[in-house]
Amino acid sequence: MKGGNDLSEKTSSLTIAEKERFMQEAISEAKKAGAIKEVPIGAIVVLDGQIIGRGHNLREESQDATAHAEMFAIKQACEAIDNWRLERAQLFVTLEPCPMCSGAMILSRVNEVYYGAVDPKGGTAGTLMNLLEDERFNHVAYVESGILKQECGQLLSNFFKKLREEKKLLKNQQKD
Amino acid sequence: MKGGNDLSEKTSSLTIAEKERFMQEAISEAKKAGAIKEVPIGAIVVLDGQIIGRGHNLREESQDATAHAEMFAIKQACEAIDNWRLERAQLFVTLEPCPMCSGAMILSRVNEVYYGAVDPKGGTAGTLMNLLEDERFNHVAYVESGILKQECGQLLSNFFKKLREEKKLLKNQQKD
Repeated sequence: MKGGNDLSEKTSSLTIAEKERFMQEAISEAKKAGAIKEVPIGAIVVLDGQIIGRGHNLREESQDATAHAEMFAIKQACEAIDNWRLERAQLFVTLEPCPMCSGAMILSRVNEVYYGAVDPKGGTAGTLMNLLEDERFNHVAYVESGILKQECGQLLSNFFKKLREEKKLLKNQQKD
Repeated sequence: MKGGNDLSEKTSSLTIAEKERFMQEAISEAKKAGAIKEVPIGAIVVLDGQIIGRGHNLREESQDATAHAEMFAIKQACEAIDNWRLERAQLFVTLEPCPMCSGAMILSRVNEVYYGAVDPKGGTAGTLMNLLEDERFNHVAYVESGILKQECGQLLSNFFKKLREEKKLLKNQQKD
């Protein structure tokens, strides 16, 4: 994984400018989630320079535990090419993936995974463990963290700050 | 995990007869997959003794890498109770879950997970690792393996045996 030690032999196929441009697209997706009071996380899947899958977190709206940004992006990408194998694709996500989404990336054989902010509580692409670079599974992806990490992290911290303020306000109103 | 060392303090809420009855339902789902030439894996979600979610593997038909039995069962269960939290639910699956499905069980907070056959190549509920009982995540499930394991395993080995025979036959026909 880049950003720490590079243990993988795989390399990135993209320039820094390309990585940042695509992460901005994932950030746009995250903002769509934030706008409807979902935790702002967004993801895209890229193939041959084209975005073929997009998604943002919709857990509360859908009341579906699996409604993560990456899952929508992967499903849409599979549908776009009518193939469950995304072997030459890149995935961009604003937050380090959880076990479910890391697993979906392994299953769909995404070639490169780029994420913004780390998830100290549940990230499994370098933090708690690294499922994407575990050679016991039948696919290993190139993983790079820290793409536009400030902006990706800020989106989340602003969201939770606002949520706390709203709760406090509500509590004070109930007291009155 | 039961079946090996019981490291968890959580206990099962079901009798052996109940576990076998529900696993038979998961096997019925697996057979639906086998009937359409999908790898025969099936899953159900149970709440208060009622089946509220069902699913079987549909990867090839859907060309969606995420189309695993457990994912359909979890989604259907969330929809049935209009809640992403399956906190008192049990999940039954014929094969040990992969990282994606183990992750979906953590996210949906399924209380108990029962599986039939172990997956030596990719199982993450006791074999390669145990995501479901990793206390670093914000949910830990009770896990028990080996429910009707003969029947669950046989379904898979018969399927792959038949597939190999069909491939051999096709190869011989092409030679003629």
